[in-house]
Amino acid sequence: MTAYSDLAAHFGRISALSNAVGILQWDSDVMMPKGAAETRAESMALLQVLRHGMVTDARIGDWLAKAESDGSLGAWEKANLREIRRVWTVDTALPADLVEASSKAVSACEMRWRQARAESDFAGLLPYLAEVLNLQRQIGRAKGEKLGLSPYDALLNDYEPGGSSAKIDALFDDLADFLPGFTQEVVAVQARRPAQEPLAGPFATETQRALGLRLMAALGYDFERGRLDISTHPFCGGADNDVRITTRYDEADFTKALMGVLHETGHALYEQGRPQGYLNQPVGAARSMSIHESQSLLMEMQACRSRQFLAFATPLMRESFGGAGPAWESEAMWRRYTRVEPGFIRVDADEVTYPAHIILRYRLEKALIADAMPLAELPAAWNDGMKSLLGVTVPDDRRGCLQDIHWPSGGWGYFPTYSLGAMTAAQIFDAATRAEPGILPGIGKGDFSPLVGWLRANIHGKGSLLPTDALLTEATGRPLDAAVFKAHLRRRYVEEV
Amino acid sequence: MTAYSDLAAHFGRISALSNAVGILQWDSDVMMPKGAAETRAESMALLQVLRHGMVTDARIGDWLAKAESDGSLGAWEKANLREIRRVWTVDTALPADLVEASSKAVSACEMRWRQARAESDFAGLLPYLAEVLNLQRQIGRAKGEKLGLSPYDALLNDYEPGGSSAKIDALFDDLADFLPGFTQEVVAVQARRPAQEPLAGPFATETQRALGLRLMAALGYDFERGRLDISTHPFCGGADNDVRITTRYDEADFTKALMGVLHETGHALYEQGRPQGYLNQPVGAARSMSIHESQSLLMEMQACRSRQFLAFATPLMRESFGGAGPAWESEAMWRRYTRVEPGFIRVDADEVTYPAHIILRYRLEKALIADAMPLAELPAAWNDGMKSLLGVTVPDDRRGCLQDIHWPSGGWGYFPTYSLGAMTAAQIFDAATRAEPGILPGIGKGDFSPLVGWLRANIHGKGSLLPTDALLTEATGRPLDAAVFKAHLRRRYVEEV
Repeated sequence: MTAYSDLAAHFGRISALSNAVGILQWDSDVMMPKGAAETRAESMALLQVLRHGMVTDARIGDWLAKAESDGSLGAWEKANLREIRRVWTVDTALPADLVEASSKAVSACEMRWRQARAESDFAGLLPYLAEVLNLQRQIGRAKGEKLGLSPYDALLNDYEPGGSSAKIDALFDDLADFLPGFTQEVVAVQARRPAQEPLAGPFATETQRALGLRLMAALGYDFERGRLDISTHPFCGGADNDVRITTRYDEADFTKALMGVLHETGHALYEQGRPQGYLNQPVGAARSMSIHESQSLLMEMQACRSRQFLAFATPLMRESFGGAGPAWESEAMWRRYTRVEPGFIRVDADEVTYPAHIILRYRLEKALIADAMPLAELPAAWNDGMKSLLGVTVPDDRRGCLQDIHWPSGGWGYFPTYSLGAMTAAQIFDAATRAEPGILPGIGKGDFSPLVGWLRANIHGKGSLLPTDALLTEATGRPLDAAVFKAHLRRRYVEEV
Repeated sequence: MTAYSDLAAHFGRISALSNAVGILQWDSDVMMPKGAAETRAESMALLQVLRHGMVTDARIGDWLAKAESDGSLGAWEKANLREIRRVWTVDTALPADLVEASSKAVSACEMRWRQARAESDFAGLLPYLAEVLNLQRQIGRAKGEKLGLSPYDALLNDYEPGGSSAKIDALFDDLADFLPGFTQEVVAVQARRPAQEPLAGPFATETQRALGLRLMAALGYDFERGRLDISTHPFCGGADNDVRITTRYDEADFTKALMGVLHETGHALYEQGRPQGYLNQPVGAARSMSIHESQSLLMEMQACRSRQFLAFATPLMRESFGGAGPAWESEAMWRRYTRVEPGFIRVDADEVTYPAHIILRYRLEKALIADAMPLAELPAAWNDGMKSLLGVTVPDDRRGCLQDIHWPSGGWGYFPTYSLGAMTAAQIFDAATRAEPGILPGIGKGDFSPLVGWLRANIHGKGSLLPTDALLTEATGRPLDAAVFKAHLRRRYVEEV
């Protein structure tokens, strides 16, 4: 055994444990009866303890040092070592008592948040959230020292390895300049559209599911290595070669669940397309959250809200639900799926206004981690930001700074990856359709194989072989900028191409 | 921390791991897509390794010695120590290389068995099964030395702690004397019954499921702590407070799946009724496989194939499926559910002939483990036994000694627990109905609470507090014998009460 093969075997075991956790997490969200919550929490906590013991195994440092001086390794093996060192550095950065304190603070804060949101009671949440924030600052400092990063960038790097607030500032400032005026322009354009006719339901869950499955198959989802189920909050999860997605059906409106399925299918195609030879190694993992979100948004926003796709899919919707009349024309469906309307709630936002929600959260969490703003001022700062970025007046904190679970649950540094993903999606889709002229005509016939073939070769199959910037540069010719995304928005929402 | 509380915490962690394994096993059988098999096998193997490390933890011996001299412990704690010592003795009895060799031999043999059964090819299976048998003998010897038991009894004790072949010989010899003549008598009685009219289907799966759920609720199954799903081989599994059962629907015949659901509900009621304060401790575990099977057979055979229950349930079946005519009378349903017919296949056998299948397997596996019979002679010995015990001529090994997975999968010593369970069920049900006159009238109204209340107090809630013989003696006044079972068979099948 070489040091490299020892390391690979060890991280293979960590992966086997993570896969178990992935399926148990899926089960908790999809299958578990209520009364099992406590039993399950104990199992999950134990597996996390076991996993922590494995990722901080004392032998890893030696193995790494030896393997890194092994001249016989190829590019994938070297990249695997780079990723192992990165993961190991982060995983060993925190003292155990900080991990435990954070875990407890998060549990308490999440529970308090459910009540605070329902009652629009920021003051009630404040002490709990302050504790979580305080511990996140400590975590950011501890990781930042190891990684040579600011506390915020260290937190960001958990989701976006190689990401930095300097780069995000530039991208988001660019977007923030563009979006408010552009949104007004789009709203004016859409005000001239004919009134949207209702799609008369109800739409049976089973029919919605069958149509979702049909479109998943068209996109290239492999049902031998995954499933579609129902959960309160749709997600893509599971394990290697067991990539499960969920949705939530509304019998009064099939359009959201359907597009949600296509979004999650984008995530799943990425997971199903990771390199089989390195599935259980850090180098075989998905590259970053921005790349992950780019794959869901590429499918949802770039491909499936296009006129080409809706010309293919609308007749299937008509067939499935027995729809007839003007509301069921593919042009009407395209207008429905490209409707822009500034609102309070991030998860209900459209493609144009979504980044404004993200920019606001990013700026606020960065300031809070840097201690540049008192947490008590969050509601006012939130509402000011919503006014200036989106032009809306937030009526209460329930529809304001209490709407998301990310901060109460310790997910600081995550928000920016949503809009990095949206920009990345635009840039990748643009490069793909230029490189492969068959992609758009394929989408128009429900044949996604040209698109997925290109993504497999240029994104999915690369895993974490390259850093994000290099991956994007190899695939699209340059690192991420906002230009293609803005051009896409202008073409779709103003030129209405 | 006392030594006892250290031990309890440690076994609580082992339980948390076992619960994770239980849910993953359920998922493998119910939800997992085909392509995930290899990934899942790696996760399961890792969790087994981690579990083995925990159950053989070097500190356990010391903790046990200290805790056993702790005078402050109550009855449950003392019983917990007794069970911990038993489990630990068995789990530390085997050298790691024997465990690994057995695991590999079983994997190879199971795979070969699927083909051998399909092709009725015992010769092809022979070398694989010989290897499994050889390793089972070694396992039996290694455990037997630690426990002071013969190799067969040591294997038996994995499923039936405190069980012995001497006791089983006496019980099974008694039954074996009784059954062949009795079966002929029953067949003669039933030959005088009116011809069985067909129940005309199809019976929609969803309707079967709804009726199954309704009857599970009547039996007292707690849906907040479990689920009903579909799998190829019905089972009861899952985790503490997450007791899941499965069935398999046949749209041409609802009667098997329905009774299967009631059988698994019997297992589940036992699991759901284990003592909450000790759920994650060895003393809170189900007592033995014979007691477990007694709870499923008590529900299925004693309660639900009774005239009382079928008088309640048949109208529900009529309602559910829109049945009408003589075949849908409760008396006809009772005749259908008490039909006796000697056959080749154990899993299709009725209540009267089932024990003959078990006695045959028990005698053969005992002889094979003792090396008192060459494995090559198994088919001939099997066929002779079927002739003498059941009066049938086995046409081929597929319908003979190749039908069950137990031996290829290393489950030697398991078979007798099925019929011990049947006898135990009869003895417990008899005691319960004598002690609690409300039980039978309750069953006739679909109210199982008098029965389940008695079982909770006398069986389920006791977990592993008492050894099996003591548990049965406390509950029924004496250790297991065949008398009540034989009397039950005579009453139901000859007197037709």
